[in-house]
This record gives sequence, C-alpha cells and structure tokens, in this order.
Amino acid sequence: MTDTKTRTGAGATPLHQMDALRLADMVERGETTALAIVSDCLDRISEREGTVHAWSWVDRAGALAAARALDAGPRRGPLHGVPFGVKDVIDTADMPTAYGSPIYDGYRPGIDATAVTALRRAGGIVLGKTVTAEFAHRLPGPTSNPLDPSRTPGGSSSGSAAAVADAMVPLALGTQTTASTIRPASYCGVIGYRPTFGVISCAGVKPNSPSFDTIGIVARSLDDCALMRDILMEAAPHAVRMPDTAPRIGFCRTPFWSAVSPDYAAMLERAAGALSARGAKVREVTLDPIFSGVPKSHRVVSSYELARVMATERALHGELISAVMREGKIAEGLALGMTDYVQAQEHLEVARQASREIFGGHDIIAAPSAAGIAPIGLTTTGTAEFSAIWTALHLPSLTIPLPDRIDGMPLGIQLIGRRGSDRQLFDAARWIERCLATG
Amino acid sequence: MTDTKTRTGAGATPLHQMDALRLADMVERGETTALAIVSDCLDRISEREGTVHAWSWVDRAGALAAARALDAGPRRGPLHGVPFGVKDVIDTADMPTAYGSPIYDGYRPGIDATAVTALRRAGGIVLGKTVTAEFAHRLPGPTSNPLDPSRTPGGSSSGSAAAVADAMVPLALGTQTTASTIRPASYCGVIGYRPTFGVISCAGVKPNSPSFDTIGIVARSLDDCALMRDILMEAAPHAVRMPDTAPRIGFCRTPFWSAVSPDYAAMLERAAGALSARGAKVREVTLDPIFSGVPKSHRVVSSYELARVMATERALHGELISAVMREGKIAEGLALGMTDYVQAQEHLEVARQASREIFGGHDIIAAPSAAGIAPIGLTTTGTAEFSAIWTALHLPSLTIPLPDRIDGMPLGIQLIGRRGSDRQLFDAARWIERCLATG
Repeated sequence: MTDTKTRTGAGATPLHQMDALRLADMVERGETTALAIVSDCLDRISEREGTVHAWSWVDRAGALAAARALDAGPRRGPLHGVPFGVKDVIDTADMPTAYGSPIYDGYRPGIDATAVTALRRAGGIVLGKTVTAEFAHRLPGPTSNPLDPSRTPGGSSSGSAAAVADAMVPLALGTQTTASTIRPASYCGVIGYRPTFGVISCAGVKPNSPSFDTIGIVARSLDDCALMRDILMEAAPHAVRMPDTAPRIGFCRTPFWSAVSPDYAAMLERAAGALSARGAKVREVTLDPIFSGVPKSHRVVSSYELARVMATERALHGELISAVMREGKIAEGLALGMTDYVQAQEHLEVARQASREIFGGHDIIAAPSAAGIAPIGLTTTGTAEFSAIWTALHLPSLTIPLPDRIDGMPLGIQLIGRRGSDRQLFDAARWIERCLATG
Repeated sequence: MTDTKTRTGAGATPLHQMDALRLADMVERGETTALAIVSDCLDRISEREGTVHAWSWVDRAGALAAARALDAGPRRGPLHGVPFGVKDVIDTADMPTAYGSPIYDGYRPGIDATAVTALRRAGGIVLGKTVTAEFAHRLPGPTSNPLDPSRTPGGSSSGSAAAVADAMVPLALGTQTTASTIRPASYCGVIGYRPTFGVISCAGVKPNSPSFDTIGIVARSLDDCALMRDILMEAAPHAVRMPDTAPRIGFCRTPFWSAVSPDYAAMLERAAGALSARGAKVREVTLDPIFSGVPKSHRVVSSYELARVMATERALHGELISAVMREGKIAEGLALGMTDYVQAQEHLEVARQASREIFGGHDIIAAPSAAGIAPIGLTTTGTAEFSAIWTALHLPSLTIPLPDRIDGMPLGIQLIGRRGSDRQLFDAARWIERCLATG
C-alpha cells in the first residue's frame, strides 16, 4: 500500500508508489523515463520480495531492455513506460509460464495471451509473472500478505494482489473463476475488478472453468483500473466520471451474512449508513429463492469443467497435481455427468435473467468482498462464497478498500453492476470512494 | 466413403475401410494388429492424398511407432490400435499445429489438447493433422471433396470430413463454432456430430468464439461416433440402442428453407414421409419469432469474440491474416461494443430457454444439414445458416447421410436434440438410419 502521508509533496513520492496514469503522464511530459520507473520498481521488488514472495519470475533484463526501447521510440499508447505484473496462469512467450504447478516448470508458451499483447501494445512493460495458486485453484504459492506476512494475501491471484499492494507495480493482471481477484484484492487493500463475463478475451489463459473464467485486474486507483479495462476490452477509453447524482445502492448482506466477521459486518453497515447520509438511496436487497441454488450450480459446472480441462495433466503427470485438487474438485467433477452439468447450466441461465430483478431500481449492489480480513497462515486463500454468486451470474464486480482497518488489516466493499454496465459501475464506485474517504 | 458392395465378404474388406469398433474388436481377438491397420491407412493416404489433400501433416513414423508399442503392450482401451485424424486447430505436442495459418508454420504446442489425450489414452493413434480453414473460420485449405475433387469438402473441418469419407481413417476430430462439422460431414457423406455445448473440454483447441466453440466428431458409423463421444466426455460408454418405439420427430424447414436446393428439399420431404410411413410421429415445426434473431445474435457474439481472441496474431502478424477474415468478421467484431455483445448474449439465453418449447412433444428435430450438395470450387466452404441456429442454442446435433444422392453427391439430414440429450439423439438417429436404409 502506498502510504498517503508520504504523497503530500510530489517530489517525495517514489516512482514505484505512483499510479499508472501519473507515471504515463510523467513519461509523456519528459519528467521521468520508462527506465527510471522500471528500475525503481525492480529496486522495490529486490527490497521486499524476500518477505512478500509475490513473483514466480522477474524479468529484470527484459523489462530494462523494453524500457530502453520505449524511451528511444515514439509514444506507443496510454501505458507508455508503465510496468505491470502478469499472473502466472497467463501465457507469456518470452518468459516461463508455470501455472503454479511443477508440471510446467520452465514451460514457455508459443505466444502471449491476448491480455498481455493488449497491454504491451499500449506501451506497458511486463515486469514478470506473479504467483498463482496451482492452476488458479486452491493450493497457494509462497506469497504472503504484504500488510502482515503471517497472513495470506488471498488467492488465486495472490502475487498480483500482493505486488500491487506492496507498490512493486501499479497494475497487475489476475483471473477469476470464483473469487480469485476480488478476494485477494480485498485482503491486500487494493482495487480488484472482475469484468462482465466474456467481454475481455481469455485466449492464452490456462482454462480452469471456461463458463466462468475471466481476466481480473488489480490496481491502486479506479482510474488505472478503468484504463486497463478499456485497453483489454479493445474499447475506446472511458475515463471514470463522478456521477451527477448519488447512486441508488442495493445493500445485499447475501445468504452468507452469518459467516461475515462481526467487526467487518459492523464496518459494512457503517459504510452503508455513511453513503445514505451523503444522499445515496440505500435500500436493503434480499435475494429471491431462485438464487439460493446458484453457488451449488456454480460448483457443479466448475467441477465438471475443471476435471475435464485437466485431462492431459491428469494423464501425463497426475502425481504432480496436488491432493487438494485431485481428491477435491477433480474427483467431484469426474463423478458428475452430462445431465448434472446441463441442469446446472440451465439453472444459471434462468438465474441470470432473474438477476435483472435484483437490481430493480438500484444502480448497483453493495455486498461483502469476503468474510473478513485475511486469515492468518499461508495454507489457505480464504473462502469464496462472497464472490461465487456474482461470478456465476456473469455480473461485473469491483472491490474498493474501505477507509478503516481491523487489526491493521484492510477490507473492501464489493460493488456489483448489471451485466454490461461495467463503466457505470466504475462511476458509481467513484462516488462511493469519495463519499467514504471524506465521510 | 466405404463402398458397401465390397463389404459383403469380410475378408474382402480392406482394413482402412472398416469402422473403428470393428478394428478394435479384431485387434482384441488377435485377427489383426495396430501396425497392420496403421500401415493400411497410411497406404490409402499415399494413394489418395495427391487428389484429396486432407492432411496438413502425416506422422508416418510416429504412428507406426505408436502402433508397434500398442501391439507390444496390454489393451489400453476401446480404441486400442485405431488410427484417427486431428483437425489442425487442435494442439498436438509431438507434431506441428498450424491452425490453418502461415503465422503458425511449424509451431509445436507444449501439450496435447484434452481431446487428443482422451483418445490416445483409449488406445487411439494420431495419424496426423487434418486440413482446417484458417483458424477454423472461412479461408479454405487445399482439400477437395473425395467424391468429386472439383467440389469443396465443406469447412472448416475440411480435412477431417474428407479423410473419413475417403477411408483414410475411421474417425477424426473436428470443431464447430457455426457449421464447421455438420456442413462438411453432409457434403462428404459421413456422420458429423456436434455435442451439447460445454460437455466436451476444448482445452488445447485454438479458440475462435468461446461462447460457441465445441469439439466435433466425424465418423462413418453411429456406433463409432458414440464411442468417441463418451471417451471425449469422460463418461461411461453408452452404446447406441435401437429405441423400442418410433421417435417423435419435429420436421423443421427452418426460416432458410427458400435457400435449400429444390432437389434436396424434395429429398428431405421424401425422407420425412418415409419416416412417418414407418411409424414415426412426424409433425411440422415452425420456429417461434423469438428465434428469428438467433443467427444475428450468434454473429454479434462470435464476431466480437473472434476479433478479440486474435489480438496477438493481429498485433504481431496482421499481414498474414487473410483479407476475408481481417476485413470481414474481425473488422465487424472490433466495431462492436460491450453493449452489443451483452444484448446478444442475453437474447441467446432467452432463446435457449425457449428452445425447450420447440421440442414440445418431439424427441428430436429433423432439419436440413446444409443448403444442398457441396458447391463446385474450392474457394468457398458453403453457407452456414443451417447449423448456426442450433449451434447458438447450444443444442447437440448430428448429420447422417441420406440414402440417395444428387449428381452423385451425398447429403445429410440434420437431427437436433434437447440440450444434454445427446445419447437419446443417437438412439433416435439409429431408428431413422435403419428406417431410411430399408425404406
């Protein structure tokens, strides 16, 4: 996390703590260079990586060379000179991609994932690959939470969240199939975004469950996150706008509210109260019974698919797949048949249509980002239920950090939009962010 | 096509003309060997490939070595010793995979696609890679229709359909995003199957439009096709069963009936009459207006996705992408935004639920497999509308050859089942096949 106290004087803020838009602007004005930025971020990694373990690969030489090339050439795009991290389930042709599994030690894919290409074309520089849980599932890598190394950063986009939170890079690519971007972003106190399903290409991302897999974005500012969103979507940039009127917010405790830690529950309720006091229409939303089966259907579809997308690894290197994955979701998925799968898919389609009703008169839904702060220990990445339902409904969601902490640890509030309303979701998040910061 | 006249005496039928189940059975009984089968298929390829051009790569040495290894070891599974072809948009680690594009000349993926692994584990032998249209889109490769080399075999699974029809292999893997398995199978007079969306893993298949991409199967017998289906689905084998009662068939001319050639239209109507005369309940089905927008929505979603999954190729080798793809569907897709995409996806979800109504009291739908026989010329792979609608609805479909020909060319009848009812679809197809053969 950038310490806001050191940011009062611009000169005092080191480059590695700055946001991407600021860095790109400084490069464009000639106030700094891509090389200086990359060098500073690499220094930050050298200093902190022994504690955080956010990276499975750092491409020092490649990143420095890319920076020099960018400094020597014309402006390539809105990320010119800005370094970013890439979750190691996302293919890069010029550095190893191991998917968090010993099966792929030293593996080099033939081409970059489309998401990597898009960011590189915009002038971004890949600093390296960030640690992922095994195949973006559950078995964690070595990453610790930079705010308290005795705690998990969350997963499966563990390294991306930790690296951005620890100011090693301003931006990182993650993925989400259940809760893999929102949860670690909340635990690490940064912004996490999971787009409307399908709008950002996943080509070159190792599949986990193709019916739910999306790219995820981790950033320290909404503006950075929105810029990255539009680049990845190959859409015209749409800067975050403060809405003219206060958003209408549906406050959804979700069916899992009893699992939310009491202090986090109180914090979320205080936030809802603060938003209401500042003029937002905040109304409680309870989910219709049709949604009660959504987590189960998500589980059926994702288990069926995960088991089968792993067929080659199971056949050739079954013994190198962790027991938690093999005996858990893979075994579960192999026991499921076509009928189970299709019934679950059909239920989800009905629920997706009904999800318009959840919004009713609301612009967005606000809900917990997780059950509480990052748990102690590095053997778990936390529970997934607070994102599974929105993921299964193919809705876009954002987690933004709340201003208060619990035991020194950050927490987010999850904001969910209608399918395809990702930009409006960011605008509403800007209103909420400002309101909470000053409230 | 196997010539049925030469099959009266078993001894007279060469191995390369036999179906997969027969071959596996003979290997198990010690009546032949994997090596003899592979050698005979390779000889057939040598003899015919100069005319048919079904293969982008034939792995002679590898296939012979695999056959010898299988002959020396225990029985691996139900395809023990049976050779098959793999459409060249499907990854193989031990032979080149070029996706029908010069961009990937000589490219070797890191691992086999899950579909290839499943068939190899069952004892199947990859004979090589079959010709695909560029990235499974439209630009054809050099393959000709084995029944008339002046005509297209259809596409994009051109080589798979031609190789199976020409008795070079009993089985081949294809893919389908719009009509890419059903159409070439109909044009070449073989069986083509496109499963319920999602039930067979596409990991290791070059994505075209992930919302519609499926594996496709090309075979010369329903039994072979069903065996391959269950292996690929990682499901218990479910042999095709002659149903106890005649199926209830909805005969659907589709909104494109005016595009069907008059002789093919008459042939389909004769077939419907013959089925009815043999006791099937055949009723005409007209599609509700909600389905009229399905081809458009399929086009919007698939263009949006195709344009974006090609981001890396566009960035690094744009000039090597064909004009038909670049200026066609890619340009179209890049002009579409998130709102267009989400609206089309939501429309398709509504239509999928409504598709249960199409079936009403019917077990299956029967419809045209294409507009007519394979067109003359190798510059087009034919039109796609007769499959696009069923593909977009995520329904399983099969094309089986009709007994009559037009200008010496075969044609199929397309049979469509409810989502997840793939096995019942095969059983109904068995009834129809027997009825038409003897009617």
